Amino acid sequence: MRSCFLTRLALISTLLFAPALQAMDDVPNSQDSAPRNVILIIGDGMDDQQVTIARNYLHGARGQFTLDTMPERGAMQILAVEDSTDNTPVYVSDSANTATSMATGVVTSRGRIATTAGDDQDIPTIGELARDAGYRVGLVTTSSVTDATPASFIAHVALRFCESPATMIDIEYSGIPLGDCSQDLKANGGPGSISEQLATSGLHVILGGGARHFEPPTEAGNMSVLELAVDNGFTALLDGSDLATASPDARLLGLFAPSHLPVRMRGENGREAESPEPSLLNEVHPYLGEVDLPAVMNCEANPEYGETPSLKALTQTALRNLDHENARGFFLMIESASIDKEAHERKPCGSIGEMGQLDEALEAALAYADAQGNTLVLVTADHAQAAQITPNGSLFSAYPIPIFSPGKIARIRTPEGAIMVVNFATNNFPYAEHTGGQVPIYGNAVAADILPTYLLQPDLFTLMRDFLEIPAQ
Amino acid sequence: MRSCFLTRLALISTLLFAPALQAMDDVPNSQDSAPRNVILIIGDGMDDQQVTIARNYLHGARGQFTLDTMPERGAMQILAVEDSTDNTPVYVSDSANTATSMATGVVTSRGRIATTAGDDQDIPTIGELARDAGYRVGLVTTSSVTDATPASFIAHVALRFCESPATMIDIEYSGIPLGDCSQDLKANGGPGSISEQLATSGLHVILGGGARHFEPPTEAGNMSVLELAVDNGFTALLDGSDLATASPDARLLGLFAPSHLPVRMRGENGREAESPEPSLLNEVHPYLGEVDLPAVMNCEANPEYGETPSLKALTQTALRNLDHENARGFFLMIESASIDKEAHERKPCGSIGEMGQLDEALEAALAYADAQGNTLVLVTADHAQAAQITPNGSLFSAYPIPIFSPGKIARIRTPEGAIMVVNFATNNFPYAEHTGGQVPIYGNAVAADILPTYLLQPDLFTLMRDFLEIPAQ
Repeated sequence: MRSCFLTRLALISTLLFAPALQAMDDVPNSQDSAPRNVILIIGDGMDDQQVTIARNYLHGARGQFTLDTMPERGAMQILAVEDSTDNTPVYVSDSANTATSMATGVVTSRGRIATTAGDDQDIPTIGELARDAGYRVGLVTTSSVTDATPASFIAHVALRFCESPATMIDIEYSGIPLGDCSQDLKANGGPGSISEQLATSGLHVILGGGARHFEPPTEAGNMSVLELAVDNGFTALLDGSDLATASPDARLLGLFAPSHLPVRMRGENGREAESPEPSLLNEVHPYLGEVDLPAVMNCEANPEYGETPSLKALTQTALRNLDHENARGFFLMIESASIDKEAHERKPCGSIGEMGQLDEALEAALAYADAQGNTLVLVTADHAQAAQITPNGSLFSAYPIPIFSPGKIARIRTPEGAIMVVNFATNNFPYAEHTGGQVPIYGNAVAADILPTYLLQPDLFTLMRDFLEIPAQ
Repeated sequence: MRSCFLTRLALISTLLFAPALQAMDDVPNSQDSAPRNVILIIGDGMDDQQVTIARNYLHGARGQFTLDTMPERGAMQILAVEDSTDNTPVYVSDSANTATSMATGVVTSRGRIATTAGDDQDIPTIGELARDAGYRVGLVTTSSVTDATPASFIAHVALRFCESPATMIDIEYSGIPLGDCSQDLKANGGPGSISEQLATSGLHVILGGGARHFEPPTEAGNMSVLELAVDNGFTALLDGSDLATASPDARLLGLFAPSHLPVRMRGENGREAESPEPSLLNEVHPYLGEVDLPAVMNCEANPEYGETPSLKALTQTALRNLDHENARGFFLMIESASIDKEAHERKPCGSIGEMGQLDEALEAALAYADAQGNTLVLVTADHAQAAQITPNGSLFSAYPIPIFSPGKIARIRTPEGAIMVVNFATNNFPYAEHTGGQVPIYGNAVAADILPTYLLQPDLFTLMRDFLEIPAQ
C-alpha cells in the first residue's frame, strides 16, 4: 500500500456513504425499502472439466448438480497482467489476481490482494463499498479466511502470503524467498497483515479456517489478532458446534481449523494421481514394451474431515446472521476453495468432494434467495485448473503400443460402474499449474437481465455493485 | 446395419411424412406458412480452452468473437457408452459417437456412425427425418464430407473409417487392423459405404473435402461414387471457384480437396508443440539442472491453404441454395472440423485459424437468420480436446528449479505482445487424446425459450426436431 488516489477515493466514499458502523442497519435503501442481497459463490478452479469430473462421480454422467439447474449461464474471461503499469497480458492467473478482478473491477498481477500491478495502489473492494453503503458483508470459505480469495474482498496487501503479522517480512517456504509486504506494515503507513485487516474490517460474518493466522501478536504487539477481532466486535467461534448456538445478533469470526479446512473426500487410502510406469523396453523406444497404469481406485471419506463444519452449514449460519433484522441487505462471498487446492495436489477425489460441498452451499443459498426475493445468486470459478478427463482406453488403442499420459493420472471407479481417468500433466512440479481457459458463470432468475452470456472477470464487480445500487466511485 | 425395429420405424416415418423427393418443396409447414430453418454449427473439439486460445490470439484477451455475442448459452454434457447393450458409460468420446448423439438422440459407442452400440441397429437421423418431412438438408464441413461428424447426420455404418467402397473390409492403417464394415455392404443387405450413402442421400447441399472417397467404383462397380452422386441429381463442384457460379437451383456436392480441407494457419515454418528439453543434470534429479523450453514462435498463414474456399464461403453458398425458392425450410449442419484435427497434431496455430473460420461462418449464418427470421442458430462443440493454456512463467517460479510440462508445449507470441503457452500432455502418442469435459453451447435469440442452460448431448436432437415440428418417431 502506498498513499494514492484510489485510497483517497475510498476514504471520500466512506465519508459520503457510510454512517458510523453501529448505525449501519438503519440506512435506508436508496431505491426501495426491500433489502437487496448479493450471494457470490466461487468454486476455486471450478472449470468445465472439474464440474464434469465431479458430476460423473457424484450423480453419474446423466445426472445433474443443483448448479446445472441454474436458469442463467455465461462464460467469463479471466484476465491478469504483468506486475507493471503497462498492462501486458498474462494468460494464466492465480486466485489473488482473479479475486481482485471480481472484488474491485481492476485487473492486477498474480499474487496481489486488491492492489494494483506495478505501482501497488490499494483498490476499493466490493466488500468495503458494500459495508460503507450500509450493507452487511460476509465471507465464507473452506480455506483459511486469510487466503487469497476471501482476502481480496476486503484487504489490501502486495502479496497473498502476508496473512498475519508473523508473515510480513522476508517470507520463505522451505528456504525459498517468496517476497514480502514491508510497505504494508502499519509502521510504514500500511494497513497491516491480512488477518489484522480482517479483524478490524467491520465485516459481519467471516467463517472458514485459518486460526493460526490470528494467534500471533498484532504488529502493535499488545494483543493477539484474535483479541483484536474480539475488541472490534467479533464473536469468535473456534469449534463447528458453536455455529448453531451462536447468537443471530452477533458479528461472527469463525475459525474452524489452523489453516484450510480439511476436505471431505480423498482417494482410497489417501492415493492421488500417479505416474504410469513404462517398462524398460518402452524407455528404449516408445513403440515397444509395456506400461503399468496406476491401479483403479475408489474415492472414500477423508478421515481428517471429522467434525469439520460443511460449507453448507457455514453458509446457513452466515445467511442467518446476515439476514437477522437487516433492512438494508448484504453482500456474501462463499468459496469452495479446495476444488483448486486438491487439484494442485493431483487429488481428484478431494476436488470431487469439494464440488459437492459447493453444490450443497448453493442449494442453501437458493433456498434463502427463493424465500427472500431480491437476492442475486451468482456462481463462478476464479480460473481454470489442471485436471482433464482422459480416456481409460486411448482413442488410438487399436495401435499395439503403450499409450499413456506423460503426467500423472488417477483411474477412479465411479458409482455407476465405469472407470474415469483424471489426468494432471501441466508440469513436473509437486503442485500442478492453473490453466487459462474461460470459466462458467451461473445466475439465478434474478440475474436474468443482469448477467450477460459473456463477460470479462472485472465486469463482475460492476455488475454486483450496480445491483447493490452503489454509485460508481 | 442389421434389419431392425428402428429401421422399420424410419421406413414407416418415410411413408407417413415424406412425399416423393421431387415434390419436397411443395410440402406445407404444418403450423404456419413461414419456412423454419435450423443451422447447427459444430466446432469439433471446441471447448473453453480452445475458444480462449483462439480469442487471445485473434482478438486479444479483452477482445471478443461473434460467438461471444450470442444471447443464449448453456453447457452440454457429452455421453458415450461401451460397444454393448448394457449402457456402461465411457467418459471420453470421439466425433462419431458425439455426432450420432446430436443427429439421432441416441448415445452410442466410439467410432459408430448413427448405429447403436452392441447390436448395430441403424438409427434415424435428423438429416433423414428433416429430408423426409420436406425440409432441404445441407452438410458443410472443412473435413472430408465422409468424416465422422457430417456422416453421422445422414449415413449408417458400424465404423467411421468406412468412408468409401474401397474401405469397407479389413481396414488397416500402417499395417494396423482397425476393423471393418462387412455387414454394411450392400451385398449383405446394408446401405453401403458413407460416400455411397451421401451420393444417394437426397440431400440438397454437401460441401467440404473428401474427393478421393468419391473416386472408387461403387460396390455395384458400374460407375464411380461421384458418378453415382451426379446420377442422383447432384451437381458436382471440384474447385472453389465454382461456388459463386453454381446455379442456385442446383443440388450441390462440392469436394474441394482429396481429403480434409487445408487449414488456414500454422506455426512458424510449420512448427507444432515441442518437448521441453531438460539438461542431463535434471534427468538425474528433478530439482537440479536446467531446461530448454521450445523457442517462442509466431503463427503464420499456411501456404497449403492457397485457394481453398473458406468455411464462410461454403456456408454462404449452402445458405443461398438451401434458401432459394424454398417454402418449407432447411436443416444445415456446418462443421469447423480441424479445430480438433490440428489439436490432435498439437498444432495450436492451426486450431486458432479454424476457430476464426467458425466465427466467420457464424457471422454469415447470423446475417441470414436475422434477415430471414424463424431460423434457429446453435453453435456447440462435439467434445472437449487436449489443449490447455499453461503459464509462461510457472505459478511456482519462485522455486529455483526447472519447472516444465511433461508433454509438449507451443509458446506463441500473440499480436498483443505477450506469450501464450499451449500444453498438450494427454498422452505420449503422435495424436493427442480428446478430453471428457462438458462443452459450451450457444444460441441466437430464436433459441431463447428452447435452449436450456444445461443439457445432455442427445437432447440436442430432440430440441432441433421439435423446432422443425417433426413428430417423435
